[in-house]
Amino acid sequence: MLEAVRAELGERGFDALTVESVAARAGVHRATVYRRWRDVGGLLADVFEAAGDDDWRPPDTGSLLGDLAALNRESQDSLTAQPPVVAALFAASFRSEEAAWGVRRLWEDRYARCEAIVGRAVRRGELPPDTDARRLLIAATAPVYHQLVLLRVPPDPDLPERAARTAVLAAGAGAFTSAPSATTRETSG
Amino acid sequence: MLEAVRAELGERGFDALTVESVAARAGVHRATVYRRWRDVGGLLADVFEAAGDDDWRPPDTGSLLGDLAALNRESQDSLTAQPPVVAALFAASFRSEEAAWGVRRLWEDRYARCEAIVGRAVRRGELPPDTDARRLLIAATAPVYHQLVLLRVPPDPDLPERAARTAVLAAGAGAFTSAPSATTRETSG
Repeated sequence: MLEAVRAELGERGFDALTVESVAARAGVHRATVYRRWRDVGGLLADVFEAAGDDDWRPPDTGSLLGDLAALNRESQDSLTAQPPVVAALFAASFRSEEAAWGVRRLWEDRYARCEAIVGRAVRRGELPPDTDARRLLIAATAPVYHQLVLLRVPPDPDLPERAARTAVLAAGAGAFTSAPSATTRETSG
Repeated sequence: MLEAVRAELGERGFDALTVESVAARAGVHRATVYRRWRDVGGLLADVFEAAGDDDWRPPDTGSLLGDLAALNRESQDSLTAQPPVVAALFAASFRSEEAAWGVRRLWEDRYARCEAIVGRAVRRGELPPDTDARRLLIAATAPVYHQLVLLRVPPDPDLPERAARTAVLAAGAGAFTSAPSATTRETSG
């Protein structure tokens, strides 16, 4: 059933998504869908929940830059995949409260798993122990989503690694440690 | 008329936006609206065009960090304003081709104007002349949009300046110059 929701979303978009269209694609009676899900919002919430209920782990390439670049490549690939299921889920999250809640939980889960990248880099001595993992991860990944989801520019094959490298350089300059470095204080003065 | 579109969007959202509701709010006959705009998409395209047709200039505070932080504060304020007109325009851009095209043009215009921030920093000697202005601006601004528009986390009052500072530190480490610095090559090796 959730596969039918994803397929409908990817091929025909949110506007065509109804309990009826999902039931038809899944080959079940619409009453069966209504029994379990009240409406399209409920279906979407379960699609997001199912998306988070997997054994996905962030890439482990042996270096911070390699991990972040591989993570960004994964994101760019899923955002540009055809049919555009992930893009359609983003669009849906602007339409339905349940979908908005689902997308928020899914992001939280993904970023929490990605903190392993920072943990490994700290153990390898690539980052100081007081690095704020979440801030580093947001800095490394935000440009890919910004360009593809908000700015809607065509995918740039160099962007995943470039955004990763920018975050690594910023980390090296002390951008993500709890106490601002001397350089930071000087710059902001 | 465009003010009526913005008001409808902000207060009632895209789903309630019709030529009729806009005409009613503006106090004109719906035929008047249809004569000029074919549909809601056409109205939205003009809202975006009008938004770009202003004399907005990026903040000029005297320092790169100050300018980027002020720019991010402006963005955060407009994304969290009530009624949520800007947020509604983002949502609309996922629904209508005309709105998607309008939002793309508006972003392009805004980032082009913001290049003045980088130009001034180069002239002050804060940045090397071969700095890629657009990449620096994306790195500085993406986290604010990422958190508020995509991750939907509550606004963080420290985020505008923190994201600006991260970009400034990355710039100082050579992240946005055309030729990767020695440090970069070392890091990626």
